[in-house]
Formats: sequence, structure tokens, C-alpha cells
Amino acid sequence: MKDVQNEKDIRNIPLKHVGIKGLRWPIELLDKEKGSQHTVARVTLAVDLPHDLRGTHMSRFVECMKSFGPISLAGLENLLDQLKEHLDAEKAFMKMEFPYFLQKAAPVTGNVAPMDIDCIYTAEKDTDFKLTVQAEIPIQTLCPCSKEISSYGAHNQRAFAKITIEAKEMVWLEELAAMADKAASSPVYGLLKRPDEKYVTEHAYDNPRFVEDAVRELSILLDEDERISWFRAEVESVESIHNHNAFAVVEKGEAYADEN
Amino acid sequence: MKDVQNEKDIRNIPLKHVGIKGLRWPIELLDKEKGSQHTVARVTLAVDLPHDLRGTHMSRFVECMKSFGPISLAGLENLLDQLKEHLDAEKAFMKMEFPYFLQKAAPVTGNVAPMDIDCIYTAEKDTDFKLTVQAEIPIQTLCPCSKEISSYGAHNQRAFAKITIEAKEMVWLEELAAMADKAASSPVYGLLKRPDEKYVTEHAYDNPRFVEDAVRELSILLDEDERISWFRAEVESVESIHNHNAFAVVEKGEAYADEN
Amino acid sequence: MKDVQNEKDIRNIPLKHVGIKGLRWPIELLDKEKGSQHTVARVTLAVDLPHDLRGTHMSRFVECMKSFGPISLAGLENLLDQLKEHLDAEKAFMKMEFPYFLQKAAPVTGNVAPMDIDCIYTAEKDTDFKLTVQAEIPIQTLCPCSKEISSYGAHNQRAFAKITIEAKEMVWLEELAAMADKAASSPVYGLLKRPDEKYVTEHAYDNPRFVEDAVRELSILLDEDERISWFRAEVESVESIHNHNAFAVVEKGEAYADEN
Amino acid sequence: MKDVQNEKDIRNIPLKHVGIKGLRWPIELLDKEKGSQHTVARVTLAVDLPHDLRGTHMSRFVECMKSFGPISLAGLENLLDQLKEHLDAEKAFMKMEFPYFLQKAAPVTGNVAPMDIDCIYTAEKDTDFKLTVQAEIPIQTLCPCSKEISSYGAHNQRAFAKITIEAKEMVWLEELAAMADKAASSPVYGLLKRPDEKYVTEHAYDNPRFVEDAVRELSILLDEDERISWFRAEVESVESIHNHNAFAVVEKGEAYADEN
Repeated sequence: MKDVQNEKDIRNIPLKHVGIKGLRWPIELLDKEKGSQHTVARVTLAVDLPHDLRGTHMSRFVECMKSFGPISLAGLENLLDQLKEHLDAEKAFMKMEFPYFLQKAAPVTGNVAPMDIDCIYTAEKDTDFKLTVQAEIPIQTLCPCSKEISSYGAHNQRAFAKITIEAKEMVWLEELAAMADKAASSPVYGLLKRPDEKYVTEHAYDNPRFVEDAVRELSILLDEDERISWFRAEVESVESIHNHNAFAVVEKGEAYADEN
Repeated sequence: MKDVQNEKDIRNIPLKHVGIKGLRWPIELLDKEKGSQHTVARVTLAVDLPHDLRGTHMSRFVECMKSFGPISLAGLENLLDQLKEHLDAEKAFMKMEFPYFLQKAAPVTGNVAPMDIDCIYTAEKDTDFKLTVQAEIPIQTLCPCSKEISSYGAHNQRAFAKITIEAKEMVWLEELAAMADKAASSPVYGLLKRPDEKYVTEHAYDNPRFVEDAVRELSILLDEDERISWFRAEVESVESIHNHNAFAVVEKGEAYADEN
Repeated sequence: MKDVQNEKDIRNIPLKHVGIKGLRWPIELLDKEKGSQHTVARVTLAVDLPHDLRGTHMSRFVECMKSFGPISLAGLENLLDQLKEHLDAEKAFMKMEFPYFLQKAAPVTGNVAPMDIDCIYTAEKDTDFKLTVQAEIPIQTLCPCSKEISSYGAHNQRAFAKITIEAKEMVWLEELAAMADKAASSPVYGLLKRPDEKYVTEHAYDNPRFVEDAVRELSILLDEDERISWFRAEVESVESIHNHNAFAVVEKGEAYADEN
Repeated sequence: MKDVQNEKDIRNIPLKHVGIKGLRWPIELLDKEKGSQHTVARVTLAVDLPHDLRGTHMSRFVECMKSFGPISLAGLENLLDQLKEHLDAEKAFMKMEFPYFLQKAAPVTGNVAPMDIDCIYTAEKDTDFKLTVQAEIPIQTLCPCSKEISSYGAHNQRAFAKITIEAKEMVWLEELAAMADKAASSPVYGLLKRPDEKYVTEHAYDNPRFVEDAVRELSILLDEDERISWFRAEVESVESIHNHNAFAVVEKGEAYADEN
């Protein structure tokens, strides 16, 4: 059968990315506490394409994915090396978006329950391997202005701390989540009994934080970690007094050149 | 050209619905305060299909939609009559999902700003015309348990009151939103200055409501309205202490038979 | 600490549902081929609430979920029994939405790769246990009208067969997916090499199907299965010539009364 | 009342962005053919925040938005100037995401119907005004490999051409959509009668295009336009033989520094 993709292309336009998107795939991840956990990812896999080649061979992306075992840093680099080899490319790119479950203990009773965070691994390899890790952790923010100006009460809400980092050494998703919890008015939990709820309510009231405050606290924690060479932190509050959200962003250091 | 859709079908299976979905369309709606407002809808249009006909003519749904002006109750019935006629059907069905903007005044300063609610009109006609109206209104709930057991503060959050009604007479979306606001710990707003924020904070603290409370308050208001022959009310809180939501549902009266 | 939820309620309004929504949870499911598979669900858990009780105890839903092992029919009924007991209710309700992975072999080369389908289990128990199973299977449809009137080619597209059933005996998700594949112009696959792509292309051209045709073929297959007491089947095509979709629905038999 | 936001901040961390997100707002846009059109946007508004200031005044974003009329290039710059002034900032940022309706004529019968495209305006101003325009246009792609290796037929599908540009002069959304249509196997339409469907089917079969081909054709058209100083073009096909998508990306020229 003719290999149409392998035809010469005379339009002289190199492609930055060519590949597949929206591939849903069951994955197994290393987990700080239990050894490993199973989840489901949405996967993008791509390579570059030289100016003189008409197309890539899309089925090979799925073939590479099939040979991919439990996910580790070394495993991700190996996947990109395989893509480069099997697709005869200079550069390979991947993105995996998945929910990850923390085992979180309630602050007073110590009851443990899973709580989900949304994560994204983005990796690229030409000669160097570059990995960006993102975690979006639900937290609580309580408004300092509302507390200050009101005779009692203070509006509070679910918020999300979205942390994106580049690091040479392993930084656990659990570590990023712990930083988000420290930066918040209060962490949020999977399971709270009444003594826990009392604690969380008072703790949040004692630690009012604007999105601006929370993102700065997060920035301090990320900045102190020597494994982290670049970060972007965003806190977004699902404001309980509006139907729109408040957000704040800090960015530090020199990121890789644009990988998207 | 051959009309394949018009072929006889011998499988002897009548279809409940055949039509188009996901049609995005600019619409103009009657508005209680300003006369009319423009928005964008996602539209489903369908008819039934008798057991002996192979297919329907999908392009005619879009043709009927093209001839449709600003939306009113009479206009919706007219659209369904047109669908029945042009598609030679016994029954016609439509669903329109759209954001609707309320002009909402802040409680102290009176500052007015638009606030969006998500609405759905679902209508059907065979011999009778049946219309179901749904509005999802953002509100605030403040937890009575958290207030009671804590020395200070109380967790609160954005919540949504989803009201679905059947009514013979016109019930304005603004009226449904006003009921949701009364059932809440506090309404939410598009624009609040500091005196408003103080008011909203204290008002919510003075009116703690579980989702169970809010949905019952809503039920009382809906039940008192004689225009409303059936309703379903749901309140769902984006809990600020968890990463999952709490919800409660009341349903009253005899609904139309299933129209979906 | 005071139990505010346990207060008497004098509003005299029984609640149809009260519970939690949007709880993301890792689950393990029985799998026809490999014994079991891991995936991630969005879970709703609820009970009814009598007219004279103010609220329910939301944390107990998560506690019941924690004690829940790999999912089976017996396991689902047991979960509902636990909810009834721990929340002191007459009726319990649950809904689980999750992606499920089929191991699908390419039609010529036999290459196997996972392919995802979206599934929903909805169950309820008062005295009787009722379970509804839904599977949304991606398929291909090729337009008979386009084939008939064109000198060459025919527009085709990804479509989705959404099957909802009630059954007393176990019906595997793999069996519903196989019915959808038979009703389609062609199945879709996770991994196809060129000989497979040739086969799929020609097979679809040889089996042109409107959404009306596909849903009727599906209806015949579902109707023949004696385990299935009720079904609703919908086929929706992501039309390749429009930016909106075409759909058709068949419904057969007597469903449980509304469980939502 | 105390102005908590105006407090000094000693953490010494400047914020890149602080503002509001997810604000839904009715907008009026200039339209190449009809003068103007109404639609609904999701809006992000933000400013930078110096290292020594605790917070911004979120309500002023909504106040600025209220004074904003029909959208034009000059209007967008004016909105950013207002944000800078009212929020006392060095830099202002906005993003508007909205559906836009093209009036598209069928290729044979000339029947006109609206067709929606998803658009994003992203703008920033410190001393210079920078605007990025994105349009995501639905098109059809027909697979050259499938056509070549099959005895008859060829798989095709709905695809999306996502074009992002920077330009000093006005480039109409209608012009970007026209480029996407030329790069496709065939345009898609809101309303097609049978002679149109025959034409579209045969036209697509005569113009087979991989995502790699379509994105290169698009690249040529964008490159020729002297108003456009930078672009990124992506074509993504909702593959009719898989449950995942194929995509290809070209990027040309020097973009503004990262504005997100």
C-alpha cells in the first residue's frame, strides 16, 4: 500500500507539532504514601515534522503509549525517546492531564479520605529533557476586607491554587498540595466530622487571605524550595458574594522557552 | 435527485425524536425591565418519526429557526407548529439553553450591574403546547451547623438554586430569581462596594441556611404561586470546606409525562 | 456539640433527595476480559429526608463510600443499604459517571488498544433495588443521502450511541458496545494500521446509515435481548458538513418512575 | 470604613496579574456585513500589583466594564487605559471569549444561515497596546491516505482550524474564517440543501487534506497577509475512525512576550 504520509512536501513549511490529542488512557502513578495509584489521563502526544515531509504516522503514537508502564520521571523521558525514534523526529512532546488523589486526614478527628486534585505533566525532549508539573489544589479563602468591615462573619469560599513548576529533582504532588494548604485561609478536606468543622471554620476566620495574600504566601514557599527552578502560582476564588471569580498570579524565574 | 430520507422503512420502529442538537444561535428575549435582551442559545429541535418512514429532512429545522423572531411564549408555540408542518410530523420538540442577564442593584449603594443566570426553555407540542422553564440562579448559603458549633465565623459559599417549573401563564425569569434570592442566606451580585459587602456578610451570617433549608424556603414560595402547576427545586452548594458539593431537591405536583 | 441537622422541621416539606454531588473517587470495576479495571468516577449519593427533620449528615455519605470495595451489582445494592442504615432513611440513591476502557482489536491486523466509553450507573433502593446502566459508545456513521446523490465519496463522521437500559441480570458494558458497533456504519478503534484503515473506510461506505437507521438497528438488538426490560437508545452524529449535530431517539417499554 | 486592600505589603512580591475571571457579559461587536452583532462573552480583567501594596479593588473592574460600549479596537485600548487609571496600575490585561456568528451562504443554492465560531480577544497595555485575536473555525478534513488506499470512499470528519494572530491593522474574523475554509477539504455550513450536500461531498473528496496539509495551506495564506506580524495555526480533526483527535501546529514570526 502506498505510504502517502511519506511523500515529499514542497511547501517548505516545518511543523512545530503534529500528533494526537484527547486520547483517554488508564495510567498508574507513583504515589508518595501508598507506592502507586491508578487514575485516568487525557493525553497529547506530538513530534515536530521537517519542512520536506508530508505527514506523520499517527498510529505509532498509540503504539508507543501501549508499551508505556507505570509513570515515573525516567518513564516519561523514555516515552519521549521512543516517540523520537519510532516517528523519526528531532523533538517529541507530551501532555498528560489527570486527577490525582491525596489521602487527607481531618484536622481534629484524623479521619482519612481521598481528595482529588487536577494535575498536568508537560514534557518535551530534543536533546534536553524538560518537564513542567502543574497541580490545581482546592483550598478555602476567607476575605480580610469582609472580616474587617463587618460586625460579625466574613465571606469565604472554595478557591483553587494552581501551581506550575519546573524542577530538576522530583517534587511530589503531595508536597505542592501541602504548600497550597499552608498558603490558604484553610485547607479543604474529603471528610470532616463536627469537631473538624469547628476547627476549620475558626482556623479560616483566624487566617483571612485575599487571593493576593494566598498567592504571595505560596510564592514564598515555592521560592524557598531549591529543587524548583521556575514557578507560576495562581489562586482563584469562587467568590461567594459574586457570580464571577477573583484571581492573582505570581511568576518567578526564567521559564523554558514556550513548549506549547 | 433521489430523496433517500423519504424511503419506506420496514423495520417498523417509530422514533421518539429525530432532529438537530448543539445548534448555536443568537436570540432576542423579552426582558421584564428593558423590553428585550440579546443572548446566545444552544438549541435542540426535533420531531417524531412514524414507523414506516426512513428519515427526516434535517435542513428544514434550520430553515424554521431562520424564520423565528424575538422569543415569546406565542413565538415558541408558533415555532413548534412550523416544525410540525414543514417536517410533516405529529409532534415537535425544542430545547433552548442560554445565559440571561438580570440587572441587579447592590443592597446599600444601589449600584446596578448585570448578573448572569443559566436558563433552559423546553417545549413540546402534539395537540397541546407544553412548556417547562428552568433557571439556575447563583446564591450564597451559610452553614447553620458551622455557625452554631464555632466560637466565631461560619463557612459559606456560592451555591446554585435550580428551579424548573410548568406554568400556564407567563412567569418571568426575574421572578424566579427573586424567589431564589429570598430562599438564600444572601443573594449574590455583579457589583458590590464596601458598604454593600458589609451588608451581605452580616445578612448571610444572620440567615444561616443548609441546602435543605434553602430548598424548603424555595418550595414554599413556588407553592404559593398559583400560576405554577408543577415545580422541581434544587439547591447545590459549592462547599468551601470540601472539594465536593452538597445538594437537596424538592418536587411538587404532577409533571407532564417525560418529554426528553 | 449541638446537632443542628437533627432539629425538628416544622415547614412540613419532605425532600426527595439530599446528599452530595461531584465527589470524585477512584473505583475498581469488574471487567469482562481482564477480571477488573481501575478508573475514576464522579459520584452522587443521596437519601430522602422526612418532612419533620431539618437536615441530613453529609459526612456519612463519604464514610459509606470509603467502605465500598470493587464495584459489582451486589456491591451497589449493599452501598445503598448502608446509606439507608447510616443516614436513617427510607430511600437511597446513587449515580456514578466514569470512563470505561474496552480492549478493542483492529479489524484486519488484530492490533489491540484500549478505547474509552463514558458510562453511568444510576441506582435506587427503597424496598426494591433498581439499576439503570448507560454507555455512550463512539461509532462512525456514513450518510446514505450523501452517498446516493454524489458521484463519489460520502460524508461521514464520529457519532455516539448512547444506550440506557434496565435489566434484572448482568449485561456487560462490552455487550452494549458490541451492539453499538453492529448498528454503526463502522466501529471506531484505538489503533489502526493501513490495512485496517482501508477496511474501515470501505466497510463504512458499504454500510451507509442515517442516525435514524443506526438507532433503529440498535433498537432491534436491544429488543431481542431478554435480560433487558427497558431501554432508550440515542445516536448523535458530529456532522462533518455542519457545526451542529444530528440525532435520533428510540424508547421501548415501561421505565421505572423518574429517579432523578 | 477601613481600606484593607490599601495596606502596605512587606512580603516584597510584585504580582503579575490580579483581577477577575469568569465574568459573563453581553457584548456588541462590529460585524463586517451587518454593521454589528450581539453576543455573550466570558471576560477576564486584570492589572499588575506593585510589591508594596496588599490588594487591588475588585469592584472597579466591573465598574470599568459597565462603561464599555460596542467593541472596537479603539474601544479595547480605551478599556485598558481606564483599568490602568481606575486601579492605579502600570499594566492592564483583558481576555474576552465569545461565539461569533458568520452569515454563510450554501455553495450551490446560496441559502444563508448563521454559523458560529469561537473567538478570543486578548489585549494588554503598559505603554504599548498589544492585541491577539483567535478564531476557531469548524471545517471538514478528508483523509488522503484513506482515499488513496481504499477502493472507494474516504474517511472524513469535522475539524477545527484555530488561528491566532497579532496584527497592527484590523483583520476581520470573517477574513480568518475565509482562510480556514480555503485550507480545508471543504468548508462546513449552517444550512445545506441536497444540491449543496452533493457539492460539498464531491468537493471534499477532490481535496483530501491531512491536518498537516490543512495547517500548511493555512500557514501560506496567513504568511501572505502583510497586516499579520505573527501567527500560530492549528488544525485538529475529530477523527471519524478513532475516539481521539489528530492535530498539527505551525508557528511563524516573533510573538509578543508571554501575556498570560
